[in-house]
Amino acid sequence: MATRTDVNTLGEFGLIDRLTAPFQLRQPSSLLGIGDDAAIIDTGGHEHLVVSTDMLVEGIHFDFAYTPLKHLGYKAVAVNVSDICAMNARPQQITVSIALSNRFSVEALEELYAGIQAACEAYGVDLVGGDTTSSTKGLIISVTAIGRAPASRITRRSGAKAGDLICITGHLGSAYLGLQLLEREKQIYLANPGTQPEMKPENKDLYAAILRPEARTDMVDLFAKNDIVPTAMIDISDGLASELMHICKASQVGAILEEANVPIRPEAQLQALEFNLDPITCALSGGEDYELLFTIDPKDLEKIRFLPDIYIAGEIVPTADGIKLHTVGGNIHDLKAQGWSHFG
Amino acid sequence: MATRTDVNTLGEFGLIDRLTAPFQLRQPSSLLGIGDDAAIIDTGGHEHLVVSTDMLVEGIHFDFAYTPLKHLGYKAVAVNVSDICAMNARPQQITVSIALSNRFSVEALEELYAGIQAACEAYGVDLVGGDTTSSTKGLIISVTAIGRAPASRITRRSGAKAGDLICITGHLGSAYLGLQLLEREKQIYLANPGTQPEMKPENKDLYAAILRPEARTDMVDLFAKNDIVPTAMIDISDGLASELMHICKASQVGAILEEANVPIRPEAQLQALEFNLDPITCALSGGEDYELLFTIDPKDLEKIRFLPDIYIAGEIVPTADGIKLHTVGGNIHDLKAQGWSHFG
Repeated sequence: MATRTDVNTLGEFGLIDRLTAPFQLRQPSSLLGIGDDAAIIDTGGHEHLVVSTDMLVEGIHFDFAYTPLKHLGYKAVAVNVSDICAMNARPQQITVSIALSNRFSVEALEELYAGIQAACEAYGVDLVGGDTTSSTKGLIISVTAIGRAPASRITRRSGAKAGDLICITGHLGSAYLGLQLLEREKQIYLANPGTQPEMKPENKDLYAAILRPEARTDMVDLFAKNDIVPTAMIDISDGLASELMHICKASQVGAILEEANVPIRPEAQLQALEFNLDPITCALSGGEDYELLFTIDPKDLEKIRFLPDIYIAGEIVPTADGIKLHTVGGNIHDLKAQGWSHFG
Repeated sequence: MATRTDVNTLGEFGLIDRLTAPFQLRQPSSLLGIGDDAAIIDTGGHEHLVVSTDMLVEGIHFDFAYTPLKHLGYKAVAVNVSDICAMNARPQQITVSIALSNRFSVEALEELYAGIQAACEAYGVDLVGGDTTSSTKGLIISVTAIGRAPASRITRRSGAKAGDLICITGHLGSAYLGLQLLEREKQIYLANPGTQPEMKPENKDLYAAILRPEARTDMVDLFAKNDIVPTAMIDISDGLASELMHICKASQVGAILEEANVPIRPEAQLQALEFNLDPITCALSGGEDYELLFTIDPKDLEKIRFLPDIYIAGEIVPTADGIKLHTVGGNIHDLKAQGWSHFG
């Protein structure tokens, strides 16, 4: 009998590795293929194109019990733009393909597209193509984003060196805690359909983080303006720990992360404690914050030291030193990646 | 109460028009957006990029009762490469995003990717990115293809002029009849699960047309070799009538199509009659053949006259003359588009 391996056994990255291992790049224009935030394509000019694609599936990545269609449209664009930012490139075009069941009205789709349009305007990208088809169940959105950057500015995951500083562009854990809040309200509502969901105003940044994240195109501009090229970069979609491991694996280095310097919003800290969660665990494993994690050569320290929204949270070390977390209590642990597994 | 318009009422193209109407192109690099087979992007060099995307949904575009996974992978790439060919460009890169339920094993996915890889090798394209996630139901594949061509060779839908010749690159109606055969065998099998499907060897080209179509990259090469730039071009995914109307609308012209010159395989003719269908209707409305429909300036007639696989099947006329079919019986009808509506 033929072997049957369950997709759950490999994990998302293991599955992708196994499926794409037999593929080779043959076109001279394909400078970088699978394995970074985006592919890099040589256009023959002094700028390269970067291309990234992401698919969002109802019931897996979003839940219409608490996801407004307009926010979903915005987020579908933002998460792809975020991948372009992670290459230190500027987004310019997107394509959007949608499959939907006939339970969606034209007006509902117009809401979704209003969100897509708002994101196009916010990030200066053009919707240049797509496909619209029916599905047998639910809504699926697939976005491809195309960006460009001078060849000398494109940043891969693989350039970090021992001694580089580890930087983060903003607060982590907010999206995860926003999601926990929304899930709790959904459960309360399902148990008591008469109740109104309770959205505390002091948690609005947590809700916004999960429902309407922003891509850090401003950071790409800030780097250019201050003549900084990060040595490695990735966007934080799956949790800080998992993303740092991606950089370490691609760059063949180790890292030491300072717990005390991982930025977490006060309201996220409070909310984590209310859920009996350790705030640092939410930041390390929560995912979906779409901040950028990058490394810089220490000679660039003075350039970034006083820039807004950049937190220096550790240092790249030789591979042999492993990937460690230095806790506020003074202990040093191995860092564990518990990113969101869609097949888990 | 809010208005609720059912998506079925607009049709696929009407829906896309309504949803994308508010969008504008702002990036100077976006030379052409929605409304052709692919978008055109200026790279700053002498070549432009073209970008196309298509989504295939289980239960809508394919049925695993008769679709081998390997063929599906091949077809998902081929239909996107076909859109690149329709711009008279050469495909170079693809991204592939897949959502799948856990009823698929890793081995099944490997079959699918073996088909994707076979298509990558056949068309000389590199798989450079993608996304793999779970779905709550079925398999969804979204492919984005990127091609390039010298600016002077890129062919849009909008360049046809009165007097141009209408050309088709191969037999039409085969895919539609192949699908009818497969559906019939499926129904017989469902009624009598003990029976073996009957795949007559003389119909193998009809099965191949629907299950494993080829994109006409060879035509792009042939045009280049013979110094031909079509005035307008589109790939025949939705049926000849519908595609010719797209060219006429984009070019603001009319057309007269000669029924006698529309190429239909003898076995497709026979099979159509067995199903009590008019063969020309299968060619006009069947879709999924992925041949190219293009127009050329009559001064290029001598260049294409003796090229293989090119059928001259009509002439572009002024808009006022409408879009007509000249039947073998000598009558002239208005051409009707009955392309496949996924929402119908």
